[in-house]
Amino acid sequence: MSGIRVAVVGYGHVGQYAVQAVQAAEDMELAGIVRRQASGKESATVTDDVATLGAVDVALLCLPTRSVPQAAVAYLNRGINTVDSYDIHTSVVDVRRDLDAAARRNGRVAVMSAGWDPGSDSVVRALMEAIVPRGITYTNFGPGMSMGHSVAVKAVDGVRDALSVTIPLGTGVHRRMVYVELDDGASLDDVTARIKADPYFAHDDTHVAAVADLAQLVDMGHGVEMTRKGVAGATHNQLLEFSMRINNPALTSSVMVACARASLKQTPGAYTMIELPMIDLLAGEREDAIRRLV
Amino acid sequence: MSGIRVAVVGYGHVGQYAVQAVQAAEDMELAGIVRRQASGKESATVTDDVATLGAVDVALLCLPTRSVPQAAVAYLNRGINTVDSYDIHTSVVDVRRDLDAAARRNGRVAVMSAGWDPGSDSVVRALMEAIVPRGITYTNFGPGMSMGHSVAVKAVDGVRDALSVTIPLGTGVHRRMVYVELDDGASLDDVTARIKADPYFAHDDTHVAAVADLAQLVDMGHGVEMTRKGVAGATHNQLLEFSMRINNPALTSSVMVACARASLKQTPGAYTMIELPMIDLLAGEREDAIRRLV
Repeated sequence: MSGIRVAVVGYGHVGQYAVQAVQAAEDMELAGIVRRQASGKESATVTDDVATLGAVDVALLCLPTRSVPQAAVAYLNRGINTVDSYDIHTSVVDVRRDLDAAARRNGRVAVMSAGWDPGSDSVVRALMEAIVPRGITYTNFGPGMSMGHSVAVKAVDGVRDALSVTIPLGTGVHRRMVYVELDDGASLDDVTARIKADPYFAHDDTHVAAVADLAQLVDMGHGVEMTRKGVAGATHNQLLEFSMRINNPALTSSVMVACARASLKQTPGAYTMIELPMIDLLAGEREDAIRRLV
Repeated sequence: MSGIRVAVVGYGHVGQYAVQAVQAAEDMELAGIVRRQASGKESATVTDDVATLGAVDVALLCLPTRSVPQAAVAYLNRGINTVDSYDIHTSVVDVRRDLDAAARRNGRVAVMSAGWDPGSDSVVRALMEAIVPRGITYTNFGPGMSMGHSVAVKAVDGVRDALSVTIPLGTGVHRRMVYVELDDGASLDDVTARIKADPYFAHDDTHVAAVADLAQLVDMGHGVEMTRKGVAGATHNQLLEFSMRINNPALTSSVMVACARASLKQTPGAYTMIELPMIDLLAGEREDAIRRLV
């Protein structure tokens, strides 16, 4: 058998790592890369139309998060399962309803918000709450670059380029270290004031520094530390912790690849990762996984 | 609605904590405790025959692990879902086949090996392997009492009572600290030699000490630290870690209660925890869980 045929849609950071992750998966085959304009630097077949790639089982939507819902519906309408890493936590339920309808209509499966947060962290949060039902879970991000915050700073007047690094201070509180390349003649004080007024930063301890060459600061490493302390039954002081130190786009795309596999084992509809059995993310025989992991 | 009616079968450490966990779950109702002989100290209705408890949706089998397979089949044959924390890792696949057949025959669900290891740790191991597909996972237990090892020591000639504490040394290597009350006239050297010859201890760094009153050493606290370092796609050095410091029977029974809830949401058959979506372990509305945890 030829394996699960996967198309990588979009070729930014996550898309580039997704190509590697599909190629590393022994049960998968890369159908090709879908992007508007080929650069000639891609490591596989490139097209702007997925129809030219032949049969495709799953599309990995490695697109800016706001383009995901519309793209997912379009791929589902073509009869292709989708996996995305849609990361606007507050809209997940609404987008899931739309994708669920589109997926059922087409007899296909959409796996949503399949990155590390939302994604694998969500699975751990759900597990922690299930087994320690009362208490508080803190999710502490970083240190690492925040794409969402960096994009917000880039839109600020006087900023040529920007990088926002998230520093965990514990109990879900974060410091934002913002590095900017200023436009010619822009004032750091003015730019700093504008950034601190942005709702993305208004509630956090935010520090802004000007640098000459932002590219020298880029490091794809990221991390998270989740803790839950709470009560199981009538017993207090149950302590749980999960942490990761990872390459952000590499891990995001690896989660997406595992969910592409899982998408082929679900009944039609849309799923977040807390709705998938973990065994479905794994390649190979079911009983082998049980023997190895249970 | 009256909630999920749960019977607690067995009233050892786990059974006693299971009663508390069922009573703490707002979507459940304790149908009663099933045990061979009532002590008069139970905190709820006690019977030696589950039939006297009226309708029961799920039986939590809080029994010695070797009695679990037969008891599970008996309850499934009565049309009652079962949850157990069967913990002989090497037999899980075979027992699962038997319970799967019994569960399907009766249109019911058995959730197996639902404790913390096997159980919630298995879910984390599966997640770690799914998202970082190449590498090594180490499971480090303790510090905490090992029931299996304590029972093995109690069977040794010259030992009146025993407690084996597991100390994690890292990379899945453990030290065994064994505390014994000796029989009158027994020699500590002889007992130590016998313990070290037992296959349960032969491969570990084992230390044996004699104590006058074993009861003074009993502490239900336990823990685990799991680490995985490996490769996602083509990217090395991805580091994942999960750890817990918990009360052993309290957490075990809390996991069982969550799986009792999940058992009512599955199609007939037997399931280990890596085969269950995490959302099914949670009480309350599906979209609320997605909104809160994804």
